[in-house]
Amino acid sequence: MEIRTNYMDGNYAIYVDYGILEDQISQYTSQYTSVHFIVDQNVYTLYQDSTLSFVQNPIILEGGEASKSFDAFKRITETLLERGIKRNDLLIVIGGGAVGDAGGFAAATVLRGVDYIQVPTTLLAHDSSIGGKTAINSTFGKNLIGAFHRPKAVIYDLSFLETLPPHELLSGFGEVFKHALLKDEQTVKALMEATKNEISLDTLKPFIISGIETKMHYVTNDEKESGIRKFLNLGHTLGHAIEYKYKMPHGIAIVLGLYFMIYASNAEERQNIFDLKLFRHYFEQHGYPLDQLKTINETEMMTLMGKDKKNQSSGSIGFVLMKNFGQCYFTEIDNDLLEKYIKQLKESL
Amino acid sequence: MEIRTNYMDGNYAIYVDYGILEDQISQYTSQYTSVHFIVDQNVYTLYQDSTLSFVQNPIILEGGEASKSFDAFKRITETLLERGIKRNDLLIVIGGGAVGDAGGFAAATVLRGVDYIQVPTTLLAHDSSIGGKTAINSTFGKNLIGAFHRPKAVIYDLSFLETLPPHELLSGFGEVFKHALLKDEQTVKALMEATKNEISLDTLKPFIISGIETKMHYVTNDEKESGIRKFLNLGHTLGHAIEYKYKMPHGIAIVLGLYFMIYASNAEERQNIFDLKLFRHYFEQHGYPLDQLKTINETEMMTLMGKDKKNQSSGSIGFVLMKNFGQCYFTEIDNDLLEKYIKQLKESL
Repeated sequence: MEIRTNYMDGNYAIYVDYGILEDQISQYTSQYTSVHFIVDQNVYTLYQDSTLSFVQNPIILEGGEASKSFDAFKRITETLLERGIKRNDLLIVIGGGAVGDAGGFAAATVLRGVDYIQVPTTLLAHDSSIGGKTAINSTFGKNLIGAFHRPKAVIYDLSFLETLPPHELLSGFGEVFKHALLKDEQTVKALMEATKNEISLDTLKPFIISGIETKMHYVTNDEKESGIRKFLNLGHTLGHAIEYKYKMPHGIAIVLGLYFMIYASNAEERQNIFDLKLFRHYFEQHGYPLDQLKTINETEMMTLMGKDKKNQSSGSIGFVLMKNFGQCYFTEIDNDLLEKYIKQLKESL
Repeated sequence: MEIRTNYMDGNYAIYVDYGILEDQISQYTSQYTSVHFIVDQNVYTLYQDSTLSFVQNPIILEGGEASKSFDAFKRITETLLERGIKRNDLLIVIGGGAVGDAGGFAAATVLRGVDYIQVPTTLLAHDSSIGGKTAINSTFGKNLIGAFHRPKAVIYDLSFLETLPPHELLSGFGEVFKHALLKDEQTVKALMEATKNEISLDTLKPFIISGIETKMHYVTNDEKESGIRKFLNLGHTLGHAIEYKYKMPHGIAIVLGLYFMIYASNAEERQNIFDLKLFRHYFEQHGYPLDQLKTINETEMMTLMGKDKKNQSSGSIGFVLMKNFGQCYFTEIDNDLLEKYIKQLKESL
């Protein structure tokens, strides 16, 4: 399956399928004199003798947020320079979302930018690898230092997903679900039906592809996030705060954030557009810890949300809500009202 | 004097004159909710009670290359985030070329990019502040990590130049001279005539403006340096190597590089297009240490030049040479031949 971006220029292909990595990558590497690899440690340990046997002399990154520190950024860029990377070389970044973000930021900044290819290896990375956002973390929050830098291609070999631990699958599914909400009611219903018993890889492929297409729609129409790209932030405003506070996997925190978004969408419209009980049952059945929402501290959440880089004012916090499936809108919710919504949600659980 | 860039979009103004800073800046700051300042320590010490009395709570950077380390990058971005910088805030960067590069890279990357204004305070920075290149240094060379990020304006208040120490004036003049070479014979002759006795600020203003216009011509037609922007690298290939090796001020090393470029331009054409003696006399009269060229080690220079980020191949080194004043061309000089030219130049001195 090949999906192409639809920018004015600088378009690239996203390949999604099983067992495609080496073949697809060779079509690109043959165009470059030198190729450099950045690979997630866990992924390399699992696949160095099989899927990744063609990878030579990789820079190995500790997976997860550790790869997004200033120190890791320094180590990656200095190692690339020590190896004599040139402007017309290619960098291939293989790993989960964090390694993709960190490797992408290195590609964006070393020699003021070199070509790179994203090879996402987790379900969550079906989201982060699309859209050209790269970043490292600040002590004041995630992804606060970064750049927009489009890859030359994204090669998403679904075989990597087969070794994902259950909590990683659950986390990645949070973004799959978000993309269904962003699309339309039919997609949400089909996804919930396909996963009514369990979330299994076999059933997810069409929803992953649909999710990538949905994300691309928003990203190509608003690359620098001045308008509709904000809608991709659905569930993320409170989700990020919960993720930061409880060190919860990203997509799991996002599901909690989505649940609050559904609550707040109903509250803002003063009617039950969405059946909260249905979503609560569905999320809890799959193991998402909605009970955690009972224990959050409103004041603390407000402070954390106020620091989000997407937030541009004080006195209120920008939120993406839904009028219906696939119908998002951006609104500033007054601080007092937002705090009241959080309190009410806690009481409702 | 106001010069406007000529990009497809995202244009900005460059203001050049005496005593214009506060008035010009207020036209921009009034458009933003919050403004953050990054200021060169030396400049702030000299001007905090006068020209810069309007600057509030600046982040102070040690001037020079120290401001372009990874540690300084971390400190700048973390301080901006600690102060709650938002995407729609403005950053104003006041200082010499190094502070401009470092502050510009922070503006390019914090929150994936915020608006910024360059306020160059040295003669050298008339060059570096134009063109949207930002960078920090690697242990493997200068400016090896960076980004292209256009400012919203450049405000070049020439009053700052009055306190420049003589070696800073001499260094900055190297780039003024390069821009004259890039323009035409008439400009070179007029500049040499105007400075035949001494290099003084009073006579330089029209040449600074002409230099900015020349640079802008190359930059707006080739922002990402895939073609003619390379010509701005005139004198820089060997110049950077000398600068790195002898820790010489940038523009002084560039004059040495320009002298070699003139030599090599003659050699490649097998005729004396340029009167070497004339240039030697002129440069030495003003105190440029051309004798230093006698002591350089060919092999070492070759190694350093091979590491330049503009260099894309091995076996040869890319060079910008001139067929005549204002007529540059890019060529790959074979390593052996280049080494021979350096040897011959040393013997000629």
